[in-house]
Order: sequence, then structure tokens, then C-alpha cells
Amino acid sequence: MEHTRNRNIKETTRVEAFSDGVFAIAITLLVLELITTLHPENGIGIVQTCLDHWRSFLAFTIGFITILVCWINHHTAFEYIKKIDTRFLWINGFLLFVVTLTPFPTAILAEYLEKEPTTALAIFGFNYILIAIAANAICTHVYNHHLLEKEDKEYYYSFKLLYRYAIVYNLIAFCLCFVSVIVPICMYALLFAFFAAPKEVASMMHKRRMARKRR
Amino acid sequence: MEHTRNRNIKETTRVEAFSDGVFAIAITLLVLELITTLHPENGIGIVQTCLDHWRSFLAFTIGFITILVCWINHHTAFEYIKKIDTRFLWINGFLLFVVTLTPFPTAILAEYLEKEPTTALAIFGFNYILIAIAANAICTHVYNHHLLEKEDKEYYYSFKLLYRYAIVYNLIAFCLCFVSVIVPICMYALLFAFFAAPKEVASMMHKRRMARKRR
Amino acid sequence: MEHTRNRNIKETTRVEAFSDGVFAIAITLLVLELITTLHPENGIGIVQTCLDHWRSFLAFTIGFITILVCWINHHTAFEYIKKIDTRFLWINGFLLFVVTLTPFPTAILAEYLEKEPTTALAIFGFNYILIAIAANAICTHVYNHHLLEKEDKEYYYSFKLLYRYAIVYNLIAFCLCFVSVIVPICMYALLFAFFAAPKEVASMMHKRRMARKRR
Amino acid sequence: MEHTRNRNIKETTRVEAFSDGVFAIAITLLVLELITTLHPENGIGIVQTCLDHWRSFLAFTIGFITILVCWINHHTAFEYIKKIDTRFLWINGFLLFVVTLTPFPTAILAEYLEKEPTTALAIFGFNYILIAIAANAICTHVYNHHLLEKEDKEYYYSFKLLYRYAIVYNLIAFCLCFVSVIVPICMYALLFAFFAAPKEVASMMHKRRMARKRR
Repeated sequence: MEHTRNRNIKETTRVEAFSDGVFAIAITLLVLELITTLHPENGIGIVQTCLDHWRSFLAFTIGFITILVCWINHHTAFEYIKKIDTRFLWINGFLLFVVTLTPFPTAILAEYLEKEPTTALAIFGFNYILIAIAANAICTHVYNHHLLEKEDKEYYYSFKLLYRYAIVYNLIAFCLCFVSVIVPICMYALLFAFFAAPKEVASMMHKRRMARKRR
Repeated sequence: MEHTRNRNIKETTRVEAFSDGVFAIAITLLVLELITTLHPENGIGIVQTCLDHWRSFLAFTIGFITILVCWINHHTAFEYIKKIDTRFLWINGFLLFVVTLTPFPTAILAEYLEKEPTTALAIFGFNYILIAIAANAICTHVYNHHLLEKEDKEYYYSFKLLYRYAIVYNLIAFCLCFVSVIVPICMYALLFAFFAAPKEVASMMHKRRMARKRR
Repeated sequence: MEHTRNRNIKETTRVEAFSDGVFAIAITLLVLELITTLHPENGIGIVQTCLDHWRSFLAFTIGFITILVCWINHHTAFEYIKKIDTRFLWINGFLLFVVTLTPFPTAILAEYLEKEPTTALAIFGFNYILIAIAANAICTHVYNHHLLEKEDKEYYYSFKLLYRYAIVYNLIAFCLCFVSVIVPICMYALLFAFFAAPKEVASMMHKRRMARKRR
Repeated sequence: MEHTRNRNIKETTRVEAFSDGVFAIAITLLVLELITTLHPENGIGIVQTCLDHWRSFLAFTIGFITILVCWINHHTAFEYIKKIDTRFLWINGFLLFVVTLTPFPTAILAEYLEKEPTTALAIFGFNYILIAIAANAICTHVYNHHLLEKEDKEYYYSFKLLYRYAIVYNLIAFCLCFVSVIVPICMYALLFAFFAAPKEVASMMHKRRMARKRR
């Protein structure tokens, strides 16, 4: 169909705009929880009120960083996408679904980490598995259905690989939840550090693969 | 008026940006309901709390998919629009009104499906009729007032037709609500499947019409 | 300063994107009120629950239409703007402030129209005066500081005039609030109809002015 | 890496779109607080209800102006940015984090200014220090890593300087919170006035520096 050719750029822009909107709202919503904690309970000072609700602050911070990392990865992976098809919209929709849900497991983690650490961490970790699956599904679809320019294909393979590793990593962390509390927490902290700079990591992986090929 | 000519592209972009914003917020708002369910009721564990509120999760998921399907259809139908007039803004505004309202009948469905299945399904179905009417009104207006390029017109007719069928289909489902519970639920599930890929369906309809014409 | 020249288009786009975001959120927020009304009060059916809260539905609808009309006018007035300066950002910020507040007087109108019609209508009307002042301030600033192309200037004067009439009209409606209930309500309904199509009205005013000049 | 070159414009646009979304939501959220104050407490009129909650109105207004000033500065500083790297995304993410939090210290200020003025002002002021640090970090990063065009570099130095002054100014205001109430309030009001027009102030600083150099 020639109907679909020359609309590609406009298409990608709109998917990005809609996704940006969803990310922006998901990242901001948890502050509402913070503000509701403020309502005056008689005779308690500010500092005490804030200290009483340190869990809400923790949830806000973890939720914010999680969604920011997702957005940075989304942003990086989208840079190379030139076309879009209907199935892509659905895979992206699934990612947005998981991102929108993120405030919920984060609130659970903050609320129940002391009382039921295993269940709270497992629910939190399950969310991360879903995010990794969605990210991998996007990159695999883009790679397999040639939604990018030819010269980028080799390089984009690294992204596909990166998020496949993320699934495995998250599955391991999820299983360890039922054995330990500290280990999965450390693993999730490491995950943040690793996916903080997806472009740099993907480039490194790409260079290595190229070097190995040449040998 | 020559005032309006060369501003078309900018115009369409802004209508899309505003619509994207409304879609993005409507699709995210229901998670707020989920989070409020979390507030500690003494002595109940996470899993139990979540199970107690499975209806809110169901409402979130159905609402998310409904609005995502609307967005995908909006996105597809807008790709071909080249110009915009004031009446178009109002028809699009009506669509956004119905989309913004969507979390409400969805919450009703989840809350009252067991207690008052007929009324809950009827309200839910009425919302879908309004969505179909709005979508059809957009496509009909675009088609009749030549807001697209000439070579797309023949193809765009399929969209107009598609949403006209959707109105009829939703009217039938609405009427069946008063007779059965299972039948309309299945019909709405089928509707999701059908409008999940509007471009592909419209292309198929277009090809058939062309083949019939040639005969 | 040459620093500011060739960034104009990018600048306008961003102001529009930010404004669109604020409009989109303001227009969607009132649905949250609707959803909270749903929470189960034992033994009351859906239809009864909805009827009990008809005021919230009314507020939602009036608020939605008000903000949609504002957006359509904002959209129309921005089409001609080519440059932007700092003072413009502040005037636009004032408009957004009033738009963001709009759900509040609308909720007051719905809540108190029966109990305290005069005060409720006066607060509602005061909001409209502020909107008209902000709209007029934007157009006057754009016109006086040449933020548009020369050939559009003559035409844009009609917008400036249109919103000046709106201020006067709203002031009259505001004063009549203290005398009657029906009259200002009719005047606000008429206002919607008039500002539903600002481009058409401005064009009509422009043609008349041109015809008068030629004589 | 040549992969990253010709995607710069698209990249900047998306960072702006996401940031605009976050700003737009943060600036609108406080109105929710206002609307919840409306719920009918028996026998109290509108005017009385509004007067009882004047603090919420104050918080809304201060929060709105704070975030609007941030957006105007963000907008101005971004105009000159031509490229983006991963570290930039994180610095911008930190700014958005502080902006998203802003409704919280603002609500504290409004709620506790009478009861615990020192603590309330200190928390409010601490937020401003963070904003100034984030703004300075963005400008310094852009300047040092050449994310702008060469001819703009000299001029952009003024922005870097401007926000460095802002940090010092806010630190002084923060310290004075523990001594006085009136002085820091006046200092924050002055701050609004100063950062209301960042482009004009930066241009003035730029001209002075150039004049001094020529001597």
C-alpha cells in the first residue's frame, strides 16, 4: 500500500507524544499521595508528619527513578525507529500499561516492606519482569520487521540483546526474593545503574560484538 | 480566505497534541483508584488486599484497553487528515468528552457487574455507542468536507463505513444487554479484537470494494 | 540581538505544547470527582447513585465545554503568532492560571446553584471575566508588539476586538447575577454559542470592517 | 559514533515534550486540593467555605507561579541546546523531580506558616535551593560539553552565571529563615521578579561582560 509510506515521520511523532504524556503523568501522580499525607492531624508538627510518612517519600523517589529510567530507555530505543505498524502500537501500549501500573507495586513496596518483605519484593520484581519483557518485545519487533534504517540494524541488535539480558536478570532477582531480602534489593539498585545509560551500554556491546566478528 | 492555507500542518499537529494529552490522562487516571485501595486496613496482608479489590484491577485493565483502542483508531484516522475546520474541532471535542468519561462507566461495570449486571452493562454499552458515533462523525466530516488529499479519499471511505458498522454493532449489543449478560460481554470482547487493527481492516474493506467495482 | 531570530518556530511550538498539556489536564480532572461519587453506599443502585450526583455530571459537562471553548479560541489565536517574547509567556501563563482554576468555580456552580444561586453565579461569572481579560491581553500584546506577520495584522485586529467585546459582555452578565438567575444563565449559554467558532466570527467582523473602510 | 549525529533535533524535541508534560501536570495538580475543600460541610455558605480555605488558594497561587517561573527558565535555557547526551537526560530528570515535588513544600508553607513559620519557610526554601542547583547543573553541563552552537557559547555563559548566583541567593535566604520570617519572604518575592524574565536578565549580564572585556 502506498497510502502508508510518506506518513512515517508524523506517525512516529504522535506515538512519542502519546507515550510522553503517559510517562509524564505516571511520574507525577505519586506526589498526590504525598500531599494527602499533609492534612493536619492535630498537634503534630511538620517534621514529625514528614517523618511519619517517610515510606511515601521513598515510594515517590523509587517510582520516579523507575519511570525516568524507563523513559530514557524508551527515548533511546525510539530514536532509531523510522516506521510504525499496528502491532508495534499494541506492544508499545503494553509497555505503557506496565509503566502506568508502576506506582502501584512501588506503593506496595514502601507500605509493606517491613511487614511482608517477601511478597512486597516479589510483586515489585514482577513489575520489573513485565517492563523488561515489554522493552525486549519492542526492540525485537522493530528489529525483525525492519522498522529502522538498514545502517542502524546491526547496532540496534545490541538493544534487543540488552533487554533480553534484562529479562533473565529480573527473573533471577524475582526468584531470589523468596530466599533473601537484601540480595534482590541490591540487584534492583544495580539494575538502575545499568539501565541509566542504555545508549552507552548498547554501544559498548556493539563494539565488542564487532571486534569479535572481525577476529 | 488565504489566511488559513499554509497553517494546515501546524493546525493538525496541535489538535493531535491536545488529543494525545487528553487520551494520556484518561488512560492513567484509573491507577489512582488502585493506589487508594492500598491504604492499610489493619491486619490484612497485601495479597488479600489485592484480591479484595480485583474489581478495581479489572476496571483499570478494561478502561486502559478501551482507551488504547480509541487512541489507535484516532491515530489511524488522523494520519490522512490534512486540513481542519472549526466544526471538526467540535466533533473531535465530543470524542474527547466521551473518552474522558470512559473511566466512569468502566468503574460502574467493575463495581456493579455482579449486583446489577443489566444496568451496568447497559451504561457501559451506551458509552461505546457514543464512541462509535463520535468516530463515525469525525470520518464522515473529514470525507464530506474534503479535509484530506484527493488520492486518499477513496480509501478513507472505508473508515467512514467501518465506524458506521460499529454504531450498528454497538446498538445491537446494547439491546441484547437487557436479555442476556454473556452475549453482550462476548460481543464487546470481539469488538476489541476487531478495532485493534483499524488500518488493516479498512485496507481489507477497501480492497474488496475496489474488486467489486472492477467487476 | 540575533540570538533570538531563527528560534521563533521552535519557541511557539513549545508554548503550545505546554499550554495543550495544561488544557488537557484541566479538562480531564473533573472526571475524578465523578469516579469518587461511585464508591458503594450500601443498598443504593447505580441509577439512584448517578441521579443523586447529577450535579457532578453537570459540573463535568459545563467545565468540559468551557475549557474546550477556551482551547479552540487559544488554538485559533495562536495560529497567527510567529514570535514570542517574555511578557507574552507571562500573559499566556495568566490565561493558563485561570483555565486551571476553572474546575473550581464550575464545581461551586453545580454544588451551590440551588442554595446560593447569586453567589455561585457571581463566582462563576467572575472566572469568565478573567478568561476574557486574559484572552484580550494575549491578542492585544500580539497585535501591539508585532508578534505576527504583517499581512495578518489587519485581520488579527478582529480577534483583539472580539475579546474586548467579551469583557464588556461578561461584566454585564456578572452585574445581572445580583438581580436575576435566569438572565445570566442564558447569557452564558449564548456566550458558548458565540465563542464556539471564533475564526468564523472574527472573519465576519473583519469583512464588515473592510467594507466600512472602502465606503 | 555516527549513529547519534542527525537525530539531534528529534531528540531535543522529545525531551522538551516530556518535560512540558511533567511541568503541565505539576502546575495543575494543586487545583485538586482546592476542589476537595468544596465538599459540603452542612450549613456553611460558599464564601465562608472559601475563606476557611484561603491557605489552599495561597498554596495554589504560589505553586503555580513557582512552576511557571521554572518553566519559563527551562524554556529559555533549552532554546540554545542543539544536542543531548545521556547525562543531560539525568540532570534534566533531577530538575523534573524537584519540580514535581514543588506542590509539597508549597502546601507545607500554606498549612504551617502560622504555626511553625521557621520550619515551613526552611523546607520551602530548601526546595528553591534544589531548583537553583538543578538549573545551574543543566546550564553548566550544556556549556562544558558543547551541546550548543559555537556562536551561542559566549552568550550562554550568562545563564550558567545567573543560576550560580541563584544558588548563593537561595542559600542566604535559607539561612535567614532561622532568624527572621519577613526577610526571607521578601527575598523569595524578589526572586520571582528576578527570574520572571531570564532572557532579558541574561542579555543584560552578557552585554556588561562584553563591555568589560572590550575595556
